[in-house]
Amino acid sequence: MTIWRLRTGADRRIRSGHPWIFSNELQQSPKGHPPGAPVILLDAGGKFLASGYGNPHSLIAFRSLSFSSSDQEITTDFLQTKILRSWQQRHWMGYKNSFRMVYGEGDYLPGLVIDRYVLKDRSAQVLAVQVLTAGVEFLLKNPVKFFELLVQESQEKGLSDFSWEKTAIVLRKDVNIRRLEGLEVVEPQIIKDVTGLDLKQSEILVDEVLPDLESKPIVMSCDLFEGQKTGFFLDQVFNIQVVAQKLMSSQFPDRKIRILDLCCYVGHWSTQLTRALKKRGLEVETTLVDVSASALEFAKKNADREGAVTICQKLDVLEDLGVLPTRHYDVVIADPPAFIKAKKDVPTGRHAYLKLNAAAFKHVLRGGYVVSCSCSGLFVEEEMMETLRKSIQRTEVEARCIAHGGHAADHPNLMSFPEGFYLKMFLHQVI
Amino acid sequence: MTIWRLRTGADRRIRSGHPWIFSNELQQSPKGHPPGAPVILLDAGGKFLASGYGNPHSLIAFRSLSFSSSDQEITTDFLQTKILRSWQQRHWMGYKNSFRMVYGEGDYLPGLVIDRYVLKDRSAQVLAVQVLTAGVEFLLKNPVKFFELLVQESQEKGLSDFSWEKTAIVLRKDVNIRRLEGLEVVEPQIIKDVTGLDLKQSEILVDEVLPDLESKPIVMSCDLFEGQKTGFFLDQVFNIQVVAQKLMSSQFPDRKIRILDLCCYVGHWSTQLTRALKKRGLEVETTLVDVSASALEFAKKNADREGAVTICQKLDVLEDLGVLPTRHYDVVIADPPAFIKAKKDVPTGRHAYLKLNAAAFKHVLRGGYVVSCSCSGLFVEEEMMETLRKSIQRTEVEARCIAHGGHAADHPNLMSFPEGFYLKMFLHQVI
Repeated sequence: MTIWRLRTGADRRIRSGHPWIFSNELQQSPKGHPPGAPVILLDAGGKFLASGYGNPHSLIAFRSLSFSSSDQEITTDFLQTKILRSWQQRHWMGYKNSFRMVYGEGDYLPGLVIDRYVLKDRSAQVLAVQVLTAGVEFLLKNPVKFFELLVQESQEKGLSDFSWEKTAIVLRKDVNIRRLEGLEVVEPQIIKDVTGLDLKQSEILVDEVLPDLESKPIVMSCDLFEGQKTGFFLDQVFNIQVVAQKLMSSQFPDRKIRILDLCCYVGHWSTQLTRALKKRGLEVETTLVDVSASALEFAKKNADREGAVTICQKLDVLEDLGVLPTRHYDVVIADPPAFIKAKKDVPTGRHAYLKLNAAAFKHVLRGGYVVSCSCSGLFVEEEMMETLRKSIQRTEVEARCIAHGGHAADHPNLMSFPEGFYLKMFLHQVI
Repeated sequence: MTIWRLRTGADRRIRSGHPWIFSNELQQSPKGHPPGAPVILLDAGGKFLASGYGNPHSLIAFRSLSFSSSDQEITTDFLQTKILRSWQQRHWMGYKNSFRMVYGEGDYLPGLVIDRYVLKDRSAQVLAVQVLTAGVEFLLKNPVKFFELLVQESQEKGLSDFSWEKTAIVLRKDVNIRRLEGLEVVEPQIIKDVTGLDLKQSEILVDEVLPDLESKPIVMSCDLFEGQKTGFFLDQVFNIQVVAQKLMSSQFPDRKIRILDLCCYVGHWSTQLTRALKKRGLEVETTLVDVSASALEFAKKNADREGAVTICQKLDVLEDLGVLPTRHYDVVIADPPAFIKAKKDVPTGRHAYLKLNAAAFKHVLRGGYVVSCSCSGLFVEEEMMETLRKSIQRTEVEARCIAHGGHAADHPNLMSFPEGFYLKMFLHQVI
């Protein structure tokens, strides 16, 4: 087992529970260490700090998997136990359909993301697995066998009804941040299939955000093979819930509720809000806007299924929104993909958020709502607030912020890892 | 009309929509200005910036009521219009029972807070009015006449059913921050009464946090005459909703759900959560902890009314929690009064939050939830997170943050006034 020591005084962050060590904080150079192989980390005095894995090709030279000195051996068994622990925690929270089972650092598993999707009629489950670091790649050398065992264990522990036969596994190594680890970026792979399943045209079961005793999950069509990230965005469930709750009590004019869904992707916002509003006996007309024709096709299918009247607009939200009527919509949703992916993107990204939100505030009716989201971790809350302030001032409306949101509960965060809080949502009412 | 000019370069903050000007930012001394009298603020070049009021006895020499040059006359009529605008906005959101009608700066009305309470059987409404600045005191020289007109207007505009006869007004000038304005701190006054009403034993109607089609409001007994702040804390409604929503889907052992409600005041958390859990067919046992016997009496009455089994503990949460069983509760709520009221309180206050939350994490069961709140505006989110991190580490539990909250929607905030975001809530699950 490789042992690395920290420089004197470099142990403060990791002792606070933060999982990362940078290469310049180590006494020795990580050069020559097999990428992703296990490492035991000691402080300058030789005391145990953490078990984890090391990577000489990454600025983050070490990532912790455990702060307990009883976990000195980082093995695939250890990884199984940790994943099942996260699954158990989701189970306690009541997740039964599609949810994020492992969320990297937030589940003490840096480098690993697993989304579990349940397909319509509960015909199969799909595990979409993102491998983001060399350490996880190292531990998942034999992923098929690994997940077969995991699925067996999940059944034995009563966490899931799905057998291995009814489980598909998609391995997502198509994420650009893998390059920072010196890893290849490759196409998604189906490493375990289920007969008759077309992952590119999946129909998954997503929990209704405002469930009641008779609730049925919402069916969402999406591409679980090559769709963005793992194919669907479960992180917005909490924010959609916050907005839906507000819409349930709001007063609306006596006509169809008009939603403008900017960067709609597969239409999660519109579909969920339609379900909620129809329960109140209201009709919904949603204008779905995206630059991708295939996303719009999914979005239309999903919102149609819940009974919305859908209008599809294949537009670039930063250039083409002039074609849509201003002061027209009851709800405008601005939930773009991350405009800021690296520090160098901050100035242009900030400007893009400003432009998009100014448009959102321009298109909403008096009394209506604007939902502003950012999933750019590097766009901190203060900066987002300042950008929203400018976009409101530019539009010359009076806008009160009535809620702010964050991640869904299946994207847990640690107080010791503030970097994990990437998703932000502010809900404004305009008068 | 008094006109004040800003020093060169001091206009940036107010141009961004922030409502305050400090005395050292003015060209002239505010000395001699009648406290609270209207002021027009110009920039160094003589351009209009804002209308508002000035106070020579306050560090915040000027507070803006409008950034529009058409609002040059700050009169009681102007104040009426602004309050009705806020009331209208709440009406659009669907508020019909008890809610905060005016939230100071968040409603472009610095110095004024109005909570509107509807009493049981809709027998009367109570407006609890906090007058926090000299400017509001100046405008409210004849409060009885002012509110009589307001109530008439609210009926005419369809915002409320309550006539002046059925309206009681409590004027709260018992807030310590009035001293910073050079104002007296005096006892609460009932300036308009309703026959037969005992405000010290009020029963108000509060919206259920997870309403359904058959929902009835929750009755909460409280003291609207001398209770803390305006008698009841409506700001927590959103956070209670977030927690209740999580509890609705969570798995619990087959027995009464055990809540530990620390600093319970009149038991709002326990009462709402009992309502929600009983809907699921679950029974609730809540341990109500407060240092005030009269608060406990109200809390017991309120939680009993919803069918909880209640255990009252008159304890100091910072000293006496040792008498309660550890690793015992399914939900622990730590919602203390502001431990930090001034900058000088930060070190001791931070320590108090640490102590209270460490106790919370010690008393929760594996799989259970800890709700950590702070209403100290000076205790910023980063510092609260760091304190929670320490309290978790001290307790040696594994705790995932699954939600964070904020103000209820009737406590709106402005992007241009970050100081308004005083209330924070973090929800952890412990495993």
